[in-house]
Amino acid sequence: MATDFYEQHRATLDKAVEAIRTREYWSPYPESPRAYGDDAPAVGDAAFRARLGESFEFDQPAHGTIEVAETSPYGVELSISYPAADPAELLDAAQAAMPAWAASTAEVRAGVCLEILDRLSQNSFEMAHAVMQTTGQSFLMAFQAGGPHALDRGLEAVAYAYAEMTRIPTAMRWEKPQGKRDPLVIDKTWRIKPRGVAVTIGVSTFPTWNGYPGIFASLATGNPVIVKPHPGTVLPLALFVEVAREVIAEAGFDPNLVTLLVDTPDAPVAKELVADTRVKLVDYTGGSAFGDWLEANVPHALVFTEKAGVNSVVIDSADDMKGVFRNLSVSMSMYSGQMCTTPQNVYVPRDGIDVGGERVSFDDVAGGLAAAIEGLLADDGRAGDILGAIKAEATLRRIDEAGAAGDALLASRTVTMAEFPDAVVRTPHVVKVDAADRSVYMREMFGPIVYVVATDDTLHSLALAVESATSHGALTWLVYTTDDELADAAEDAAVTAGVSVAFNLTGGLFVNQSAAFSDFHVTGANPAGNASLTDPAFVAGRFRLVGVRKPA
Amino acid sequence: MATDFYEQHRATLDKAVEAIRTREYWSPYPESPRAYGDDAPAVGDAAFRARLGESFEFDQPAHGTIEVAETSPYGVELSISYPAADPAELLDAAQAAMPAWAASTAEVRAGVCLEILDRLSQNSFEMAHAVMQTTGQSFLMAFQAGGPHALDRGLEAVAYAYAEMTRIPTAMRWEKPQGKRDPLVIDKTWRIKPRGVAVTIGVSTFPTWNGYPGIFASLATGNPVIVKPHPGTVLPLALFVEVAREVIAEAGFDPNLVTLLVDTPDAPVAKELVADTRVKLVDYTGGSAFGDWLEANVPHALVFTEKAGVNSVVIDSADDMKGVFRNLSVSMSMYSGQMCTTPQNVYVPRDGIDVGGERVSFDDVAGGLAAAIEGLLADDGRAGDILGAIKAEATLRRIDEAGAAGDALLASRTVTMAEFPDAVVRTPHVVKVDAADRSVYMREMFGPIVYVVATDDTLHSLALAVESATSHGALTWLVYTTDDELADAAEDAAVTAGVSVAFNLTGGLFVNQSAAFSDFHVTGANPAGNASLTDPAFVAGRFRLVGVRKPA
Repeated sequence: MATDFYEQHRATLDKAVEAIRTREYWSPYPESPRAYGDDAPAVGDAAFRARLGESFEFDQPAHGTIEVAETSPYGVELSISYPAADPAELLDAAQAAMPAWAASTAEVRAGVCLEILDRLSQNSFEMAHAVMQTTGQSFLMAFQAGGPHALDRGLEAVAYAYAEMTRIPTAMRWEKPQGKRDPLVIDKTWRIKPRGVAVTIGVSTFPTWNGYPGIFASLATGNPVIVKPHPGTVLPLALFVEVAREVIAEAGFDPNLVTLLVDTPDAPVAKELVADTRVKLVDYTGGSAFGDWLEANVPHALVFTEKAGVNSVVIDSADDMKGVFRNLSVSMSMYSGQMCTTPQNVYVPRDGIDVGGERVSFDDVAGGLAAAIEGLLADDGRAGDILGAIKAEATLRRIDEAGAAGDALLASRTVTMAEFPDAVVRTPHVVKVDAADRSVYMREMFGPIVYVVATDDTLHSLALAVESATSHGALTWLVYTTDDELADAAEDAAVTAGVSVAFNLTGGLFVNQSAAFSDFHVTGANPAGNASLTDPAFVAGRFRLVGVRKPA
Repeated sequence: MATDFYEQHRATLDKAVEAIRTREYWSPYPESPRAYGDDAPAVGDAAFRARLGESFEFDQPAHGTIEVAETSPYGVELSISYPAADPAELLDAAQAAMPAWAASTAEVRAGVCLEILDRLSQNSFEMAHAVMQTTGQSFLMAFQAGGPHALDRGLEAVAYAYAEMTRIPTAMRWEKPQGKRDPLVIDKTWRIKPRGVAVTIGVSTFPTWNGYPGIFASLATGNPVIVKPHPGTVLPLALFVEVAREVIAEAGFDPNLVTLLVDTPDAPVAKELVADTRVKLVDYTGGSAFGDWLEANVPHALVFTEKAGVNSVVIDSADDMKGVFRNLSVSMSMYSGQMCTTPQNVYVPRDGIDVGGERVSFDDVAGGLAAAIEGLLADDGRAGDILGAIKAEATLRRIDEAGAAGDALLASRTVTMAEFPDAVVRTPHVVKVDAADRSVYMREMFGPIVYVVATDDTLHSLALAVESATSHGALTWLVYTTDDELADAAEDAAVTAGVSVAFNLTGGLFVNQSAAFSDFHVTGANPAGNASLTDPAFVAGRFRLVGVRKPA
């Protein structure tokens, strides 16, 4: 059965391995909801509704169920309970499950992983509702980012894992010439030794998209995975664990290779869990404080973090501002700025910019951006579809705080959703600020908050963007310029800052978006995170090679 | 010039990249001293002698010279002084040197690295004397392990670095279909961002062999390297730094990409150096205590360690014991057991083993091994060539300590060398001990000390070998068995222990030896070290990728 899964998905795996080399666009999981057939939406909706108020039943080690602090930003009553598990017992179970999985082949493990991804894909509507209701994303974003795009990221990690494990020959004969004497001849093989128990600590906003890479990289390289979701966003990863355990058992392995450890804000378990020296891999997505703690305090494990940052837009010049405003207004509005890739600071020279040979003042640039956002979100129905809902109380507080400093170019307003009257929806708050007022904008203000910063000139803008990336981290930069020299300077500055950079986006591609198999998410080169999704370094250390030499 | 080096060495680089894939035997640096021409020995000898009593002159930041505690186990007066450098100044210089090097290409950097290796190869006789006199190795071992084999390991690291940096396309056009609308099209490139200043902390026994991999992996991926040799073994890495700086300057880069930081046992600088958060990479070879400290206390850097361990031989059965004794006696004698790969514990069932259908008693196995070592080293002249000299005072103390517990099968004796009357040369001390006397053998006793341990049976032997590897680390196992089932069990045990394993070596290949491009040195999977020379994980994290997206 396990081998069948490999044969069944082999073509997909081969294509994925090819895609990570060419970096060309590719996805085996359709991002259009229409591609899943006419019945899929209703089936997915019903499956999601059937979860509400119920308790998840796994056969993993557990002591009854745990009531969680999971809430829906749309105001939907979730009331789902989950297995109450003990960290030490899950570690025991993971270790017991590991040997057979570790001893199987790269092909078998990849096959099982691809079958898990495939089954998850069949449930993408249920997952979409789960992601939407727990994170506050709009339905379409929840469908795409929580379903197919997350599966792409998972598959990408499997492809890297498979590529890394198959880089050396399974067996070979080594012959060293010895002059006139007979050569030294020895037969060599290499065995893969997985590193050990992996822990994935989930994030509240993109639990599957950010969670799958580490989970699948660990699993494909032979490690068991304990999944600890964010206490406020449990359901999406619980759905994953359910499917993973089902496939693993069907393949003849111990389902405790993947277990769920749910906690609450009042009694968090992550520190206790990772302090156990049996934990050898930790993948974390979330706030910087705990990420920094993990990086410094778990020396017995490889720790991969995706934290947060201050993303920058640098506007130097443009052929036409319409496309700039259109593109930026969408970037800043989608999911209410709750993407770790959303721009926060927009740097504009205070004496204006060149647009198609004409001078456009700072106020016109800043005001134009605010107006574009206002226009995009003028209609509450449309605004709700773009903004989604606000997940964290802290984000609401930051919106209020942002109102207290600088000149508001656009005040955040509350949007009412017809379908979800209790949804917490806010439009972006756009603030005008001078570069000198560093305490206002030189800090992370996660959420729908935008600072338009007046600078001396574009080099000053770049210097501030470098500084914020270096000190607070950054995942994305977006630079608008028609000047090739400045573009080169911006690219060099991006390398210095360790931030991916896009130029002159005016169409349907947004800086927030990064595509699996092609774009690396986070560079690992500034405080926004120490890992990159997915590069070879994210995978290579998850297993070790044990050489075996036998006389020929 | 820099590009010339690449063109000049391109075929060698390509072959190295191929070799790490096939794992076949290959080396561009001849291991036979005879291959270097008739004049080379005399030229090398003269070059070495010219160093004695002199001071190294680099144009790196320095404040005069420093007197060091460098000593020769052969009793030769070295009295070489080195630049006295300040860690913070070297960090400043390294950072200043980095941008141009980082901004060059993978090809340019590989070319410069290969030219450094090539020049070092031309100086392999001088290096052999330097390694011999500082480490105590025999001349032939110093020549091979300090010269060509070390260069192989350096080239291997360059090959991995080059392969990792060129895994993604330099530039490509990404097109995402959008149904009936125009596709999203964007041009992508990726820039390599080196991680930052690297520090290599050298070992006293194999300074170049263990040092080059980290140095060249860092350098090839764009990072400057500060080389801090072991205070007792400075000259070999100083020779390296001299050559590296010369080639780097010729290539038009700042020679402060490679600097030398020499310290003394009384005023060690490594902790101060790596505590600076500008240090982003640390490569360490040496004792476990400082390696463990580095792993736990330098969260701002990637730390790669090669420490120490307790290596095991498991004797279960054999066709013929002559080859077993011959092979083992050489393994245990060469360089007086001062290789981190030398076997320490030999596990033999207390009721004997099967040899070609006949029972051979424990005492006959243990006694046979002791006799083989005694015979191999009976002649002082030959013994000196095999044993070399003892580097560390602590090793002499361990030999004395080993004499105090267990029954001596063979007492260590002092060997006199005609050429070096002050050389400190000792034969192995072989002790018989019961498995129950754990405090005697279940510990690391680096040096010419061998324990022959009487066990219940071979499964017991394997369990003890696993335990010692798991608790103290291990780099090598050697198993003698004619039983296929036991061989499988041993292989599984080796994977559990994270130790490379060789079987039934009776000829000219010794378990101590690991070949570049083919064998991985240290697995990184037990306390003997967290890194493996050289696997992709050793290289992949030394640089990051910064994506650049521009509308097509």
